Amino acid sequence: MDGAAAAARRVISALLRTGDDTAADMAGMAKQLHAVADQLEEHAPARETRLVNMWRGDGITRHDPVTGPENALAPPLRLTGRADGSVEGTVTLGIAYQGPPGCVHGGVSALLLDHTFGVANHWAGLSGMTAELTLRYRRPSPLFEPLTITGRQISVDGAKIRTVGGIAAGGRDCVTAEGLFIAKHLPRPR
Amino acid sequence: MDGAAAAARRVISALLRTGDDTAADMAGMAKQLHAVADQLEEHAPARETRLVNMWRGDGITRHDPVTGPENALAPPLRLTGRADGSVEGTVTLGIAYQGPPGCVHGGVSALLLDHTFGVANHWAGLSGMTAELTLRYRRPSPLFEPLTITGRQISVDGAKIRTVGGIAAGGRDCVTAEGLFIAKHLPRPR
Repeated sequence: MDGAAAAARRVISALLRTGDDTAADMAGMAKQLHAVADQLEEHAPARETRLVNMWRGDGITRHDPVTGPENALAPPLRLTGRADGSVEGTVTLGIAYQGPPGCVHGGVSALLLDHTFGVANHWAGLSGMTAELTLRYRRPSPLFEPLTITGRQISVDGAKIRTVGGIAAGGRDCVTAEGLFIAKHLPRPR
Repeated sequence: MDGAAAAARRVISALLRTGDDTAADMAGMAKQLHAVADQLEEHAPARETRLVNMWRGDGITRHDPVTGPENALAPPLRLTGRADGSVEGTVTLGIAYQGPPGCVHGGVSALLLDHTFGVANHWAGLSGMTAELTLRYRRPSPLFEPLTITGRQISVDGAKIRTVGGIAAGGRDCVTAEGLFIAKHLPRPR
């Protein structure tokens, strides 16, 4: 399934890279893509069943829209826990994540950081749900260049978890952020 | 091209709805999707050419990852400007946008709101780049139910633009947010 999701990522990007002003047969592409979706949907279990299945186990999930290898929306970002308690990953974003010309959409940066903070909290041993997130945009984050994404839990006070991190390119901060999380989780469906 | 992007959205969702535990031929799906990407890429202009083409004109773009009909990452959200100066849209998000079980990923909410604030600023007559964004998560935003997304510019002080808004479901606030924007744009490539 990871392979099919990776192929779907190629399609998303290739659609945007090609555009309407070419000889590409977009109607034919749509037809082929609908055929794939039809074949998949024939095998899809009931939605409620799938919502249980996809949360099976207690570890990290594989379907989220940031790191999930099964989710074609995800770049995917791969995060690694470090000995100092932080997590870090490097990702190069393409045309589908564009905001200003040639740059990462500010909201995409927020998406990556919110998720990274969640993983950082998990890595530090206590995670929860986002209560507040503040992002400061210091310079545009470039597309097509490696971005370093970091997150680190800095304090736990009862159920209140504070986490900081950011996005850097070429050693310079592009976005810095801080989050307040509450140590609580919605139950995994069973 | 909008039709092909809509079909790609169906594929992204159907992959997640189906999963690995079925009789679906995932390797075959990957092959079909790579074939579509290959055909598209044959027609893709050079990246620099495409980056100019896609920004042609001076109006709203069609390729962004929130409202863009050409971008399969976008739900897409459709925003409408209202007479009171605000913008509003309703969107129902599916499985690809999941964070906690059955709920919208907090980072996806941030992505939608950052973009909505940009559109609200454009609608109000002065837009810019995100400098600071603060999000407060009040209750989980449900998947599979209509969400109302709003944005409204509340003040302009020199180049500083302040914008507020949020996400509500069933008449109750799920996320509220405020943003500081600087009235400046990266030039469109020509």
